Amino acid sequence: MSKGRVLSIQSHVAFGYVGGKAAVFPLQCLDYDVDVVNTVNFSNHSGYGYFGGPRATATDLNAIFEVMEANGLLKPERLLTGYIPGAEALFTVKQRVTQLRERKPTLVYLLDPVLGDAGKLYVAADVIPIYRSMLPFSTIITPNWFEVEVLTDTCMSDLPSLRKALRILHEEYKVPNIVISSIPLRDWLQECLPENIRPSTTSDDGFLLCISSSAENPNSRSSTIHACAVPTIPGYFSGVGDLFSALVLAHYEAITDSDIKHSPVSAAASQALTKTHGILSLTHEHARSLPEEERLPTDEELDVKEPMRKIKRMRGRELRLIQGQDIIRGTKEVEFREMQPWNGFWNP
Amino acid sequence: MSKGRVLSIQSHVAFGYVGGKAAVFPLQCLDYDVDVVNTVNFSNHSGYGYFGGPRATATDLNAIFEVMEANGLLKPERLLTGYIPGAEALFTVKQRVTQLRERKPTLVYLLDPVLGDAGKLYVAADVIPIYRSMLPFSTIITPNWFEVEVLTDTCMSDLPSLRKALRILHEEYKVPNIVISSIPLRDWLQECLPENIRPSTTSDDGFLLCISSSAENPNSRSSTIHACAVPTIPGYFSGVGDLFSALVLAHYEAITDSDIKHSPVSAAASQALTKTHGILSLTHEHARSLPEEERLPTDEELDVKEPMRKIKRMRGRELRLIQGQDIIRGTKEVEFREMQPWNGFWNP
Repeated sequence: MSKGRVLSIQSHVAFGYVGGKAAVFPLQCLDYDVDVVNTVNFSNHSGYGYFGGPRATATDLNAIFEVMEANGLLKPERLLTGYIPGAEALFTVKQRVTQLRERKPTLVYLLDPVLGDAGKLYVAADVIPIYRSMLPFSTIITPNWFEVEVLTDTCMSDLPSLRKALRILHEEYKVPNIVISSIPLRDWLQECLPENIRPSTTSDDGFLLCISSSAENPNSRSSTIHACAVPTIPGYFSGVGDLFSALVLAHYEAITDSDIKHSPVSAAASQALTKTHGILSLTHEHARSLPEEERLPTDEELDVKEPMRKIKRMRGRELRLIQGQDIIRGTKEVEFREMQPWNGFWNP
Repeated sequence: MSKGRVLSIQSHVAFGYVGGKAAVFPLQCLDYDVDVVNTVNFSNHSGYGYFGGPRATATDLNAIFEVMEANGLLKPERLLTGYIPGAEALFTVKQRVTQLRERKPTLVYLLDPVLGDAGKLYVAADVIPIYRSMLPFSTIITPNWFEVEVLTDTCMSDLPSLRKALRILHEEYKVPNIVISSIPLRDWLQECLPENIRPSTTSDDGFLLCISSSAENPNSRSSTIHACAVPTIPGYFSGVGDLFSALVLAHYEAITDSDIKHSPVSAAASQALTKTHGILSLTHEHARSLPEEERLPTDEELDVKEPMRKIKRMRGRELRLIQGQDIIRGTKEVEFREMQPWNGFWNP
């Protein structure tokens, strides 16, 4: 049986797996009918250095939405928005989001505020205030570390600043659920982790922490925090955040049961983290098995001199979604990455 | 493991399952990495009466292809082309097809010459000569009955005219493999069928015949014909041909084994027919289960008076691809529709 309809609004690339290409197939495998609106139609992701193809203008997007509306086809149960470059196109999407939200208060809206990564913006700065104004319509947001900093204008360098950023998102922007997919587990962060979350093993490349924060429990004045540390897989892989967000949305079940250990969003994040890490491990293994010239390490200086060097590396690091579809479906078991309650997070 | 890469060049719709939306997911489920170039980005298929969204121009398509080429990303093992409206865009695609063919003689190219159905063209007439000029580059073509007539300029009304049409495609246009997905089994056709293909049961809505013709056996002067009759499922469903073509491509294995009963293309057509009929049956059952106002019968006069009547019918008849994904994967068994040899087809 179908789990219902998802409307996915994000980028499309012909080759490889980022944006919609990383999100739609997993949602379909998990039994969702997906309505797919492409904000761009590019050849490949921008990490290759060289990419091309048309962008949908606000007029193009409106033409699609208006006909869908007239034909009674804008009735998703869930909504997913990702990379939408340009303020005008994003504003058009915002108008539809507002309309869908008003019409269906139970709509589950996962907003992935795609702004940049590791200190660099990939969008024009004028989209930032529009994303901020969309936050109150979301059910879940899945920013990365850098995007939290940009949205909240907070540099996160210790527990008080992490608390402050989450508080701004929950209280000022009215976001019910936040999942920060990956934060490098630096010393300050490691030191404030409770025993049940602190990694018990070592990892050559360190760890990434996934944190969820749910303010949905009306009996609590502060939010419920969960977290899980996973070993960092070295190298940069594109589309990981897009896959993760789609999986959080796919696994999110608003129904509250008697399970006090998990919030609905931490349960979804556990599934998403497990499967994303599984796909990433598969991709990493594949990249390592390639001939040497296809797996040259990241080196910006050499890349500038020899652009094919970077292109080959990018090709070898495209997510192995097709090869790992059993992981996505849950029919192939991989190590379960369970989000654990972070009790005392808000204690002064 | 991945079965390799397919480059799919056809239409995209946000809602529903035609063109790439009917083809890409099945190919992915069957373990192909699919590179997806969208020739249009529409809201929904044209059968709704009202549709909108941007078309890719020849310039747009070239921008995508040129970057893919520069990045070394145009290396598919298989190629699928479908609905490409407009002569200029089709001509651009033809140039790429020619290039890919020359570069890789083992490329498996399935050309679905999407021109129209049931006596009506859905493309401008100036694309017809371009499609004709592309036929010699194909490995397999999957025209419907009407498209065979248009391409060969032959009205098929008896066995000699059917033979003539196939001969033109094989000899004049050098097409190695032809699969005509569905021909209404009228009296003249039924009468010339051999015992092993003639339906042994009755069907209220008649039968459709699938015919494959393979000229790949170098020891034979004429082609090898296979066919299978399936009961007609009443009503019009969009995207069926697109799904069928994708499945023929997915299941085509050029390796000849000792199986003299099947040609590579008849074996692929058996799988495609089985799965397409399975999905169509599921879709038909679903459409019948809808509330009465969602399943009003086809009636053009009433549709003109009340456009929502047609729109609701179209919505209810979107292919149940997601719900039937186990059929596509082959993990849910459905009645096997096996193409049978049509011995004596060419005998005078």
